[in-house]
Amino acid sequence: MCNRIPSVLIGYVVAMMSRPVAGVRNDTIIVTLPGSPKGARENLEAIIKTLPHACLQASGANSRTLHAGGVKKLEADAGISTQGGPSPHQHHHHGCSHSHGHGHGHGHGHGGLVRHTKPGANPMSNDPSLGPSRRQRASPYPMLDVSEALALIEEHTPRPDVVVTKVGVGLVGSVLAEDVIARENVPAFRASIVDGYAVVVPSDGNMKGIYPVTAVSHAAPGEEKPLKEGEIARITTGAPLPIGATSVIMVEDTVLKSMTDDGTEEEEVEILAEGVKEGENIREVGSDIKQGAKILSKGEKVSGVGGELGLLAAVGVAEVKTYRRPIVGVLSTGDEIVEHDRPGDLRLGEVRDTNRITLMSAVRQWGFEAVDLGIARDKPGTLEQTLRDGLRRVDMIITTGGVSMGELDLLKPTIERALGGTIHFGRVNMKPGKPTTFATVPVKTNSGERIVKPIFSLPGNPASALVTFHLFVLPSLHHLSGESPAGVPSVPVTLSHDFPLDKGRPEYHRACVSVGHDGRLSASSTGGQRSSKVGSLKTANALLCMPKGEGSMKKGNTVQALLIAPIQPS
Amino acid sequence: MCNRIPSVLIGYVVAMMSRPVAGVRNDTIIVTLPGSPKGARENLEAIIKTLPHACLQASGANSRTLHAGGVKKLEADAGISTQGGPSPHQHHHHGCSHSHGHGHGHGHGHGGLVRHTKPGANPMSNDPSLGPSRRQRASPYPMLDVSEALALIEEHTPRPDVVVTKVGVGLVGSVLAEDVIARENVPAFRASIVDGYAVVVPSDGNMKGIYPVTAVSHAAPGEEKPLKEGEIARITTGAPLPIGATSVIMVEDTVLKSMTDDGTEEEEVEILAEGVKEGENIREVGSDIKQGAKILSKGEKVSGVGGELGLLAAVGVAEVKTYRRPIVGVLSTGDEIVEHDRPGDLRLGEVRDTNRITLMSAVRQWGFEAVDLGIARDKPGTLEQTLRDGLRRVDMIITTGGVSMGELDLLKPTIERALGGTIHFGRVNMKPGKPTTFATVPVKTNSGERIVKPIFSLPGNPASALVTFHLFVLPSLHHLSGESPAGVPSVPVTLSHDFPLDKGRPEYHRACVSVGHDGRLSASSTGGQRSSKVGSLKTANALLCMPKGEGSMKKGNTVQALLIAPIQPS
Repeated sequence: MCNRIPSVLIGYVVAMMSRPVAGVRNDTIIVTLPGSPKGARENLEAIIKTLPHACLQASGANSRTLHAGGVKKLEADAGISTQGGPSPHQHHHHGCSHSHGHGHGHGHGHGGLVRHTKPGANPMSNDPSLGPSRRQRASPYPMLDVSEALALIEEHTPRPDVVVTKVGVGLVGSVLAEDVIARENVPAFRASIVDGYAVVVPSDGNMKGIYPVTAVSHAAPGEEKPLKEGEIARITTGAPLPIGATSVIMVEDTVLKSMTDDGTEEEEVEILAEGVKEGENIREVGSDIKQGAKILSKGEKVSGVGGELGLLAAVGVAEVKTYRRPIVGVLSTGDEIVEHDRPGDLRLGEVRDTNRITLMSAVRQWGFEAVDLGIARDKPGTLEQTLRDGLRRVDMIITTGGVSMGELDLLKPTIERALGGTIHFGRVNMKPGKPTTFATVPVKTNSGERIVKPIFSLPGNPASALVTFHLFVLPSLHHLSGESPAGVPSVPVTLSHDFPLDKGRPEYHRACVSVGHDGRLSASSTGGQRSSKVGSLKTANALLCMPKGEGSMKKGNTVQALLIAPIQPS
Repeated sequence: MCNRIPSVLIGYVVAMMSRPVAGVRNDTIIVTLPGSPKGARENLEAIIKTLPHACLQASGANSRTLHAGGVKKLEADAGISTQGGPSPHQHHHHGCSHSHGHGHGHGHGHGGLVRHTKPGANPMSNDPSLGPSRRQRASPYPMLDVSEALALIEEHTPRPDVVVTKVGVGLVGSVLAEDVIARENVPAFRASIVDGYAVVVPSDGNMKGIYPVTAVSHAAPGEEKPLKEGEIARITTGAPLPIGATSVIMVEDTVLKSMTDDGTEEEEVEILAEGVKEGENIREVGSDIKQGAKILSKGEKVSGVGGELGLLAAVGVAEVKTYRRPIVGVLSTGDEIVEHDRPGDLRLGEVRDTNRITLMSAVRQWGFEAVDLGIARDKPGTLEQTLRDGLRRVDMIITTGGVSMGELDLLKPTIERALGGTIHFGRVNMKPGKPTTFATVPVKTNSGERIVKPIFSLPGNPASALVTFHLFVLPSLHHLSGESPAGVPSVPVTLSHDFPLDKGRPEYHRACVSVGHDGRLSASSTGGQRSSKVGSLKTANALLCMPKGEGSMKKGNTVQALLIAPIQPS
């Protein structure tokens, strides 16, 4: 239809309409419309709205000027709004003050790369069928700052589904999708706090004397007969007070005076207490939790420590609405990768797969289900089929390898050319993790709903993969599961020694954060930070956000630390 | 045999020999000997050694003087040594400077309870068959300080079994029982760090010029032919260097000059770089991890963040020796307890069971498997059978309820009288959690080995149960699983407001610890601290160790915080 349509626009159309754009062949967009007249008309209407913009660009207008207003302006011009997520929260941008378009238009002026080709001349990923001679010789993706990348992740990650979940151990880690109201009072009855004797306190508070034990109140359901002044009822901790009782005397303040003839029951007990007040040692109805009170709020997370779970159980709430927790598929790519536990020595060029188990472990550590998608070989069809199969089973795919400039890096082309996905960014100004790639791919659910699912393609180096998982994938998982704030907690820490700085890029330095005797957090490096060194994450509980710069950041300076594991005492 | 044998000695004999003492009836010990002559002789010999001591005590010697040397002295006098744990580490007292005997002889002078009966007159738990009239009217268990209780837990918790575990996601949370040595170098071959061209650097380092592309080195196994000066080989990130190559030029520093006739392969490439050094952009063999190097040490824990798992995977270690992780059974007790999700309203006296799911959740949160043992009713036989069944399935049992003074509190009698167990302590000087009870029970494994398994009986109040889980059960789980240091991390924090103090007992105040802008930890209360209030644990990530005292601890003071969940930014 129009030639030289920029790929970003194509991706946008695909993401917007999920189906009509079936593919691109040379410079032609192939459009498939649904069979129903209504569907065909609606789809065609949607395309028609965007065609003027596409043609303008195709006819040579300056892309940067054209896109200056970001996707919002494009949408406004076309009279449409972004689709993508399954939830009505799609447009909430929690805690984000940036305004971003899609993956283009950013990144100018950041890194120090020398471009030899005109930017925008071929902004799509390599076509693997063309061979190495026609590949790009520098990344076509603009270099984004981490904050820009995070804003794109927030914008393009689908919002969570709401599901009804039973209250039980399986609820831990879920975020509530509704306020929760106490169904019952806690306690539900006037209960004794101690083992002892329920009494009716006389006006002077003096209980000294010998009393007949006229009843027994166990911590068990039962009918209670009213207690009168001058009588006492033996009561156990947690048991309901007899009607009429006004206080409870601890057993330690009593002496047994006489027993029944068979010696098994108390007849009379002496109370040694004076100055007894009404209400002592009694938990009043609803004094812990009032029926009707809001015990938990929408957006709160159920921790594993028990407080939230205990509240729900205590008031008889058997099920709650929560945000569904996403399932994550983890895939390694590359002909050189072998199973980490393959017996025997490595052949030349083989590398054991560390990323799959470390990323699956990290996914689970943060409370999400991980699915092993195996190792995909460097054949375009294989990778495509593995991704298609994975996208049917999981809500997000994480791949490692195949995202740098190599001619065998098939991932971006497969996402864009085979799956009709959109690459939101493909380079980030950081160390390690520069080639981190974030894409969404349109998927039709079993119920026929059109949604997108995120794919994160992380660098193959083990440390890069784990750093970028925490920095980018985790926030996306939090958006997908309704957790806010998204991402690992960031806290200020003091450097306990000098840290070298990278001249070119901000660095996420693997470190161990501990608490000193003064209650202040300090950080030490875990050692060599080369991105291939998975050992740099051994004992690491934090990633320090180091700016780019000359020389080193001196001991005693304060930087932000992203906490990936619990803080330790020093 | 001897009358008035103190129960503590009986328990000791039971723990020591696992079987011969079948029970106590009035003042007589009933002894059952094995049928085999050898077993009978060995058992009898063991009893005979302890009889003189028992008779001395029974004849009226001062128990405290007699036991001054603790169990070690008793053992030395009798010429025997304690059995119990399955491991040779039984007597290691890591990081503990106290010296303790068994549960007697402690606790004098602690709490403020008025005793009306002579201490020691009936130091065993109530005999439930005797009815309420003959129950004790104050706890017979001495009040221990928390540090004393922790020392007894360390002393009596069995040491872990060593097992062989496959390296995989299931290894997370395990502690290594051996040093781990790298089987292979990482990388195993000289590898390129970038996409580009492998070159042989001339002596002047000037690579400027046009070169023929004579080979391709992918990140895949293959035979490489030697590279000569003046030739270049295209190489991808991670691929093996051709023999003879001395450096790698990044693709970004090159320009394609000519292609093969079919246009699919590079023929000549121009390199723009000068000042090239040998070894640039190359990962040398073993430069990340050296073959033979110790990558992990015995006692280190495999975190979920991936560093340890990645190291193991990277060097081809497929299985490692670890300490077996214990399985924990969680049991609620009491006729008044109903399932938390039982439909319909509560009847008078009924209480929903919060403890089982909150404790199971906490057990799992700390990385251990939890088994639901249900609710045991207040019938001696029921509780005994539930405990016996549980002890066959799990390594430790946690019960809640049934540990205060109530006449229906059957747990201690069942442990002592039916299961032949030893109660190491039954009262702790703390708030909440005073009636916390720790016992060990002798068990015969399927292989016929005689071991002991710990039982923790925690108070039934929800907050008490969760506080005492973290304070006492978790350290025991850590001893059982080889984790050191045992228990939750303790760090100093600054109070962000005044905290009320308890006059009678040290208090573990539920609080939220956060990091201020100065990198300093501060703590705020989660509100009302009544032990029945499970809500006091909502949002709590710490237990503050508050001393007993008058008035309040002022804002700005520093106290130790036990961290039960991750610290949050402020």
